[in-house]
Amino acid sequence: MPISIVIDRSAAAPLYQQIAEQIKEQIAAGKLMTGARLPTVRQLADDLGVTRLTIQSAYGELQAGGWIEATVGRGTFVSQQPRRPLRAAAGTPPTAVHVIGDILQLSESSGIRSLGKASPDPALFPAEEFWAVLGQLLPHSAELAGYGSAQGDPALRLAFAENVRERGIDATPADILITAGVTQGLALTAQSLAQPGDTVLVEQPTYIGFLHQLRSYGLNPIAVPMDDQGVQPEMLERIAIQTRARFLYTISTYHNPTGCCAPVERRRQLLEIAHRVGFKIVEDDIYAALALDAPPPPAIKSLDRNGSVVYLSSLSKSFMPGLRIGFLIAPQPLLERLTSLRMATDLVSPLLLQRTAAELLKSGCLRRHLRRVIPLYRARRDALLAALALHLPNEVTFTQPTGGLSCWLTLPRRPGLQDLPRQMVEAGWAVAPGEVLWADHDGDLHLRLSYGCCRRIR
Amino acid sequence: MPISIVIDRSAAAPLYQQIAEQIKEQIAAGKLMTGARLPTVRQLADDLGVTRLTIQSAYGELQAGGWIEATVGRGTFVSQQPRRPLRAAAGTPPTAVHVIGDILQLSESSGIRSLGKASPDPALFPAEEFWAVLGQLLPHSAELAGYGSAQGDPALRLAFAENVRERGIDATPADILITAGVTQGLALTAQSLAQPGDTVLVEQPTYIGFLHQLRSYGLNPIAVPMDDQGVQPEMLERIAIQTRARFLYTISTYHNPTGCCAPVERRRQLLEIAHRVGFKIVEDDIYAALALDAPPPPAIKSLDRNGSVVYLSSLSKSFMPGLRIGFLIAPQPLLERLTSLRMATDLVSPLLLQRTAAELLKSGCLRRHLRRVIPLYRARRDALLAALALHLPNEVTFTQPTGGLSCWLTLPRRPGLQDLPRQMVEAGWAVAPGEVLWADHDGDLHLRLSYGCCRRIR
Repeated sequence: MPISIVIDRSAAAPLYQQIAEQIKEQIAAGKLMTGARLPTVRQLADDLGVTRLTIQSAYGELQAGGWIEATVGRGTFVSQQPRRPLRAAAGTPPTAVHVIGDILQLSESSGIRSLGKASPDPALFPAEEFWAVLGQLLPHSAELAGYGSAQGDPALRLAFAENVRERGIDATPADILITAGVTQGLALTAQSLAQPGDTVLVEQPTYIGFLHQLRSYGLNPIAVPMDDQGVQPEMLERIAIQTRARFLYTISTYHNPTGCCAPVERRRQLLEIAHRVGFKIVEDDIYAALALDAPPPPAIKSLDRNGSVVYLSSLSKSFMPGLRIGFLIAPQPLLERLTSLRMATDLVSPLLLQRTAAELLKSGCLRRHLRRVIPLYRARRDALLAALALHLPNEVTFTQPTGGLSCWLTLPRRPGLQDLPRQMVEAGWAVAPGEVLWADHDGDLHLRLSYGCCRRIR
Repeated sequence: MPISIVIDRSAAAPLYQQIAEQIKEQIAAGKLMTGARLPTVRQLADDLGVTRLTIQSAYGELQAGGWIEATVGRGTFVSQQPRRPLRAAAGTPPTAVHVIGDILQLSESSGIRSLGKASPDPALFPAEEFWAVLGQLLPHSAELAGYGSAQGDPALRLAFAENVRERGIDATPADILITAGVTQGLALTAQSLAQPGDTVLVEQPTYIGFLHQLRSYGLNPIAVPMDDQGVQPEMLERIAIQTRARFLYTISTYHNPTGCCAPVERRRQLLEIAHRVGFKIVEDDIYAALALDAPPPPAIKSLDRNGSVVYLSSLSKSFMPGLRIGFLIAPQPLLERLTSLRMATDLVSPLLLQRTAAELLKSGCLRRHLRRVIPLYRARRDALLAALALHLPNEVTFTQPTGGLSCWLTLPRRPGLQDLPRQMVEAGWAVAPGEVLWADHDGDLHLRLSYGCCRRIR
């Protein structure tokens, strides 16, 4: 049985994972063929000088991923249909949950140059400064070991209240709920504003995680078409009235995935329609700090005089997704309902990370970080757009993002092109397949290309 | 207007919070009377030499808490019914959401000696060791800034897989989902196993957070009576059949709030009934590491041969609640559904804290910590039980916990006693009022006394 595994005890990855990864690679490379028998747990443990739990864990991981199958009394075999490292890129049509799983896990180590995740570049993360702040919090360990306020750390709520003044929003810490990223804020908001069976309006295309949430909570997404200024007002009004939608979810500032930004006049129109027809606007402002050309227009929330808007943002795009720190601003009594539901969901966010984020905001670290990275993201966007203009035929169209991290391609309908995302992964470039970003797919082939992590575009 | 406020710019608490706290104290102490007018924002900002946002934030916090009221054009006044620092102790009957909020926020700084929270003592937390591990992770910053695996960090899943062998459970990392504490694990499980309107069986009394979850998700808790070995099997079978319950939620090992522990024979009975009648068992094993006398019986999960049990635990009681790191073990395909729902809820737990937890488990830090703190908790339990035996009349009964952090008192029905929890708070002792821990209150007066954080019991 031609299986060769090298383990590195000094590496960060646990041994079982190193073993599982190497077996996956050998299956993917065709070195281990379908039906090949793997060594027994005891045998491989002895060969590699590791415990049996390590091998059981590696085989368990491979089994859960569909790479191998165990048959009682016969042994463990390579499965008939080995899965690709990126499940979304396999032969079957991608599903939201698989694409999200792949995006979460994409890392430099996999040898794939990623255009697939709309995330900041982890190599630019100001690690020294972040760890220095963490270290300074040691004297507060007894307080930080506990839970803290259900609404979130007051110091962090104050820091966000000061931060959103840049977006034209006048809020106090009492108006803010700390959340585990915008994703949790959206989950709480969707569950609080709508009941299973209700309709929710989304941009077409939109954030894949939100579509996954709507399906998980039994809500029906209805797409509203966009033009180059965002959601089309006439269509919004007509569809909202027809569907009795509870709210519109919008990323009006550097929209994901198109990079489009709604001008202030369009924002006023959306707000006026929402107030007149009687639905809420859920404004995801997560990309606003990543303005690559001019400053962004004010948030829709800043124009709201009727309590129509729930505003959400986080540090995941401007700073570090792994921090899992975001917030929302909502009018009372909705904020109280959201806080109660957050307590039911998972009580609170880790106080240590909340306080660290508060210190980073207060000390100006975030502001300095943005001043440093924005020129780099601008250069990466420019390089990507130049490369697309140079290399792509005219029949492929793409957006011109003025902020955020993504560009949106539309390809002509032509036989064979459907397989492009998978071919790109095989050539070493991860991209997000467009069809999972649609509530109601139009049948065209789209790709989202995210330039944030892409250091070498020619 | 007799308002005197001292601010401390070197303190950890933000200025607005210091100001809000001092105003609250003066209202609670009767120095600021109902109807008294507070200074204007501008005036107080000038007096204290702080920004207007700071004062707006302090007033916003006081307003949200019901302490003060603002009337446009007239000014800001102390409310008619100022709320007590502990909302659960106010004149109105306590609600779960207020009691949970109070428990989360209880801290040493409030000057209240807490018997109210079933949490480990933050003063015993091994801060130096924890921060040392955090610091060692700096070289991995680029990886830790990102999301990682949707199921949770493989290194942490492996550490928990090794950890649960002590509980008799044979699991690999592929069987484990990392969660934001047991609370999130329970929320995901309840939503996956039951639909709104379904019945869920709970112990009587039970964990307040779970009751809050059931109500938040539209599920009906039905109480199963307990004896001193836990859930009564005959009652369980009868009620499960009658109500067609989807699952039983049980804390069989050092039950919260009674401290009761089910022997292995009782565990087998519950499992046998669950399999025969056709419902699941959701086993919350969070207190198992806090065995104060003998080692605990094996987990129910370890006896399960039919995939009847979802097992949950965390580091919140054995180590540090603020870490928000727990896990669950569930059979497939349920585990896949739970992982998908976790992605909808908030994607993942912060990778930095997951990896820190993995290192602490791997290095034996958690084991050493438990060896150090268990004798202290044992001494505190013994002191509490001795004091109760000495000072309380015979008509008050209380449990004899052999592990965990809580003891359960039952008081006689007598006029005037209903007010006891509030009186205790006023005397400087926080306790959890029993009535919010019942799915179906029996009308008796109960108190939960938690000895984990109580350093001086005479």
